Amino acid sequence: MNPTRLQRLRSELVGQQIDAFLVPRGDEYQNEYVPAADERLAWLTGFTGSAGLAALARDRNALFVDGRYTLQAAQEIGSQPIEQQSLSAADIANWLCDALNEGDTLGYDPRLHTEPALAPLKKRLTECGILLRPLDDNPIDRIWENRPASPNGVACPHPHTFTGEDSASKRQRIAQLLTDKKQDALWLANPEVCAWLFNIRGSDIPHLPVALSMGFLYQDGSATLYLADGASSDALRQHLGREVELVSDKPQLFAAAERQHVQKVWADPLLTNCWTLQQLRNREMHLLLERDPITGAKARKNAVELAGSRAAHVRDGAALCEFLAELPKAVQQENFGELEAVQLLRSKRELREGFTDDSFDSISGYRGNGAIVHYRVSPESSLPMKAEGIYLIDSGGQYPDGTTDVTRTVALGAFPAPAKEHFTRVLKGHIAIATLRFPIGTCGEQIDAFARKSLWDAGLDYAHGTGHGVGSFLSVHEGPQRIGKAATNVALEAGMIVSNEPGFYLTDEYGIRIENLIFVKESADYPGFLEFEDLTLAPIDRHLIEPTLLSDSELEWLNRYHRKVREALLPLVNEQTQEWLQAATKPIARGEVL
Amino acid sequence: MNPTRLQRLRSELVGQQIDAFLVPRGDEYQNEYVPAADERLAWLTGFTGSAGLAALARDRNALFVDGRYTLQAAQEIGSQPIEQQSLSAADIANWLCDALNEGDTLGYDPRLHTEPALAPLKKRLTECGILLRPLDDNPIDRIWENRPASPNGVACPHPHTFTGEDSASKRQRIAQLLTDKKQDALWLANPEVCAWLFNIRGSDIPHLPVALSMGFLYQDGSATLYLADGASSDALRQHLGREVELVSDKPQLFAAAERQHVQKVWADPLLTNCWTLQQLRNREMHLLLERDPITGAKARKNAVELAGSRAAHVRDGAALCEFLAELPKAVQQENFGELEAVQLLRSKRELREGFTDDSFDSISGYRGNGAIVHYRVSPESSLPMKAEGIYLIDSGGQYPDGTTDVTRTVALGAFPAPAKEHFTRVLKGHIAIATLRFPIGTCGEQIDAFARKSLWDAGLDYAHGTGHGVGSFLSVHEGPQRIGKAATNVALEAGMIVSNEPGFYLTDEYGIRIENLIFVKESADYPGFLEFEDLTLAPIDRHLIEPTLLSDSELEWLNRYHRKVREALLPLVNEQTQEWLQAATKPIARGEVL
Repeated sequence: MNPTRLQRLRSELVGQQIDAFLVPRGDEYQNEYVPAADERLAWLTGFTGSAGLAALARDRNALFVDGRYTLQAAQEIGSQPIEQQSLSAADIANWLCDALNEGDTLGYDPRLHTEPALAPLKKRLTECGILLRPLDDNPIDRIWENRPASPNGVACPHPHTFTGEDSASKRQRIAQLLTDKKQDALWLANPEVCAWLFNIRGSDIPHLPVALSMGFLYQDGSATLYLADGASSDALRQHLGREVELVSDKPQLFAAAERQHVQKVWADPLLTNCWTLQQLRNREMHLLLERDPITGAKARKNAVELAGSRAAHVRDGAALCEFLAELPKAVQQENFGELEAVQLLRSKRELREGFTDDSFDSISGYRGNGAIVHYRVSPESSLPMKAEGIYLIDSGGQYPDGTTDVTRTVALGAFPAPAKEHFTRVLKGHIAIATLRFPIGTCGEQIDAFARKSLWDAGLDYAHGTGHGVGSFLSVHEGPQRIGKAATNVALEAGMIVSNEPGFYLTDEYGIRIENLIFVKESADYPGFLEFEDLTLAPIDRHLIEPTLLSDSELEWLNRYHRKVREALLPLVNEQTQEWLQAATKPIARGEVL
Repeated sequence: MNPTRLQRLRSELVGQQIDAFLVPRGDEYQNEYVPAADERLAWLTGFTGSAGLAALARDRNALFVDGRYTLQAAQEIGSQPIEQQSLSAADIANWLCDALNEGDTLGYDPRLHTEPALAPLKKRLTECGILLRPLDDNPIDRIWENRPASPNGVACPHPHTFTGEDSASKRQRIAQLLTDKKQDALWLANPEVCAWLFNIRGSDIPHLPVALSMGFLYQDGSATLYLADGASSDALRQHLGREVELVSDKPQLFAAAERQHVQKVWADPLLTNCWTLQQLRNREMHLLLERDPITGAKARKNAVELAGSRAAHVRDGAALCEFLAELPKAVQQENFGELEAVQLLRSKRELREGFTDDSFDSISGYRGNGAIVHYRVSPESSLPMKAEGIYLIDSGGQYPDGTTDVTRTVALGAFPAPAKEHFTRVLKGHIAIATLRFPIGTCGEQIDAFARKSLWDAGLDYAHGTGHGVGSFLSVHEGPQRIGKAATNVALEAGMIVSNEPGFYLTDEYGIRIENLIFVKESADYPGFLEFEDLTLAPIDRHLIEPTLLSDSELEWLNRYHRKVREALLPLVNEQTQEWLQAATKPIARGEVL
C-alpha cells in the first residue's frame, strides 16, 4: 500500500489528458486467477480479492467490491484516500457520473474489459456526456517499477490417456460447427479454450494449469495458436502437428488469419476483450457474437475424462481423510490454527500421485470464520483451533487426470446445540440433489431449490449457488452449466461435472457446507432421464447428524455412500486413518443416537 | 371453409402489389379470446384454435399451429390448398424465405403484431432480401362480407366492494411510478389494463369481462380513455369522474395526449401493437419500452380482492360438487357425453350468485380425450360417457368477486390399473406446491420441479406448465407470474393468485390433472418467507388415490383439505350432494385400502 502510486497514476493520466481511469481485477483473458504481472488492482490499491474494480476520477478514487470482500478491502486499503463502494454496474456508473463533469474523458484498457460488461456503463456515461476512450497502453504498466515478469512457463502436451480425444478430432468436430454456421474461423479467446482444443497444459497461472494462449481455429480444422516466446518446445511442436501454426506475438496471430482469408469470425462476446474485437473489426472481419461452442464441448466430459476424475477423486479423498483423521490430535497442539490446517492438508495432497497444485485457495474456517462464505485465511485472520466447535474446510487439488473440489464440516469437540439440526438440513438438501432424477433439457435453476427445501421448511436459506461446473485438469469454476437461483438457460447434459454444495451460515458462530463433485449421466432405467453420480469420496461427519430428521431413504443413501467411501479409500490410507475411516463410515441405524 | 376466400384475398394482395401477407389469430389488443369481428384467421382458413398464424405467399399458403392443434387444424383446413407447419418464429421465417424471392414484399397489419414478436422474422427476411411493409388497412376487412359487427357492449363501473381500491388511488400510485421514471404518460395498451385501472368491466369478449378500450395515464393521475361509441353511460361518466376524459375514436386519443404536451411515453412492448408505437413515434414522442407497471400491480391482489376470490370459490365449489355428485347417475343415461357434461356443469354454475360466464372453454375429456392437454369438446368429438373409465373436467367461472379455474379427475367406475399410481404421483406434486415455503424473491421456475418430482422419480413428466396467474373478475390467464420450466425472472409476491395444476397423460387412455387456485401470502411464522393458501374447494377423488404412496404429512394435508372443503360447502349444496360430499371428503386412515 503506497499512496504515491495513486498520485503517480494520476499524473500519468493528466499527461494523457484523461480525467478518469478504470482498473479492473481481470487480465486480458478474463481469468479468475491472474498472473502476478497482471495484479494491477492489488499493486495500485493493496486489495487482493478475486473480484473488484478501482476508479480514479479527478480528485476522488473508489474501490468497488462485492459483499464478501467489504471487510477485507477496508483492511487492505488502509488509510489511502479511496472510497469503498459496492461492485454493481449501476453503482459504478452513478459514482463516475457524480465524480466527473460533462465533457470529461474516462480512459480504459480495452484488453481488460469485454463489451457486454462495459455496455451498461457506456450507456449511462454517454447520457451524462462523459466520453469513454480506449487507451493503447495501460498507464499503470508505464509506472509500475519492478513489475513481475510475465509468466513464460513451458506448455506441455496433455496426453491421450487423460483427454480421451486427440486435438485433431476435437478440431474437426468444432470446425464442423463453423461450417454449419458459415463462419471462416473461431476466435479462441483464452487459455482454457486453447488447453482443451489443443490438449496442452501449462503453469502460467496460479491454480489453473494452462499456458497463456489465444488463437484461431479455421473451417478446415487447422489453427493458429499464440503462445509466448519460450513456451513452446520440440515436443509441443510435434504434439500439435503441421495443421497448427505457432506464433509468439499477437500481431502475427491476426496476420495469420488474414493470410487464411478469414472474413467471418465467430467470437464469444463474454470471453473476448474489447481490444481483440477491435483488431478483428479493423481488419474488416465480420463478427458472429455467440457463445463459444468449445465451452459446451469442454463441459461434456468423455469416458476417459470421467474415469480420470474418478481416479483423481480416490487419491484426493485418501489425502483428505488422512488430514481429517489427524485433525483431532493436531488441534491439541499449541499454534495449530486455520493456516496450519491448510498446510497440513496440502502436505497430504502433495504425497498423492500427480498432484500439481491446489485447485483454488483453500477456505479454512473455524467457528465464526466458517460463516464467512468466501473466507480466505491469512496470517492475520487465522484463528487458533481447539478440540471444540465446528470447522469448515473447502479445498481441492489439480491432478493430470482430474480437478477436485470438496467441502467437509466437522465437529472438533463440543459445539453449539442448533448446529445438529442445521447440519442435517444441509445434508438433506445435499442428498436431494445427489438422488434426483430429471428429464433431459432440465437446467440448473430448475433443480436448485431441492437443495434448499429442507432449509426453507425452517425459514432458512444460504446466499450462494448450489453448484458450479468443474474442468478436467482445468478450472475448478467452469461454465456453462450451474445450479443456482439465477437463470442460466443451460441444460445439464450427460458428462457434465458439477458441485453439489448446499450450506448454512450462522454469523459469528459457524459455517456448514457439504460439497461433493457429481457428474450427470443417462438413467439406465428411465429413457430420456438423467441422474447424478458422486465423484467425491470422504465421510460426512456423523457427530453433526440428527438421524431422526432423516427419512429412511436418506439414511440409506448416507450408509450406502459411506460404504462406498470406505471400500474405495481403506486400501489407500495410513493405518491411523484406516481406524478413523472405519468409525467415520459406520452405518447409522434407524433410531440410533449419535 | 371457402376456398374462394383465399383466392379473393390473393387478388386483393396482387392489387396492392403485395407478394405475401400474414394473418395472425390475435386482435389489436393481443387478446387470448377475440371478438367475432376479429376472427380473421378462422374466417380465412376455418381454423378456430386459440393460437395460430396463416401466411399467403405468391402460389403457396401455410397455416402455422403448435403441437396441441395439429389434428384440429388438419380437420378444419379440410381440402383447402394450405400447408400445415409448426408455429415457431424460425419455421415461419424459413417457410417465407422459401416461398418468396429476393425483392418480394410481405405485407402485415401493424395493429395485429407487436415489435418483439415480429423482430426475429424481420431480421431473417431482411437477410433474404424480402421487404416487410405495414399496411394501412387489413385486406381481409375489405373483402369480408357479412362480417360480424364490432362489439359495443356497455362498460360498467366495478364497485369498491369488489376492487377494494378506487381508480383515483390506483391512478395516483401508478402515476408516481411515471414521475420516478421521468415519463409524461403511460400507454394503456389493452382492455385488461384499463379495466383494472379505471375499475370498469364489460362484455365485449368471450370469457373476459372487459370493454374494448385503451388510453393514456398522465403524470398527474388524470387520463384519457378510449371506449367505443355507445360503451359509456352517465353512470360510467360519473364513476370515472372529471380527471378521466372519454374519447370514442382513436385519433382523438392521440390528439388528447398531444394537448397534454406528452413527450415521453412508457409503453409495454409486449402489449403494444406496432401501429400504436408508430402513432407515438409519428408524434415525436420518446418511448420507454418496459413492462407495464400495471401488470404487476394488477397481479398483487389486495385484501378485498382476496376475500372476493375466497367467496367466489365457495359458490363455484358448491356448483362443481353438485355436478360431480350428479355425474354417476348422469352417465347411466343414454346420450350423455362430454358435451352434455359441460352443459350440466354450466347449469350448476348459472344457479350461483353473480355468475356471468365460463372463464374459458371447458375441457371435458373422457378416457383418451382427457389425454389431449388442450382438448376442446365439439359435437363431432364428444364421446358418450359410461359408468367406467376416467374423466377430466377443467373449467371455471367469472363472478364479480372473483375468477375461478379448477380441474378434477374422477373415476366413473372401473379404470385402467396404472391410473392409481399416476394419479397419486400427480397428487404428491400438487401437495408439494401447496405446502411449499419459499423465500421472498423466488420465481415460479425455481419451484416448478417440486410439482414434477414424484413423476420424475418414475421417469414421467407432463408437457405443460404448473401454474398461471389468474385475475380478479378478469382474465383466467394473467401475468406476469407463472410456475413452469421456462424462465420468467418474475418473483412470486404476496397477493398473487396462481394455479397449481400438475398432470399426467397416457395417450389414448386417460388424462389426469389436479388443479386448485392458490394465492401467495407472507409466512406468519418465518419472516422473509412466503407460503401458499388454497382458494379452490372441491374433493379430490378418493377412488384414484393409493394411500401407501403418500407420506404421513401428505395424508394429513389431504384430510385437512377435505375437512375444509366439507365445512365450507356442506351448507351450500343440495341434499343429494351433501351425502356425496360427506363420502367424498371422509378422512383416509394410514393403511386404509380404498
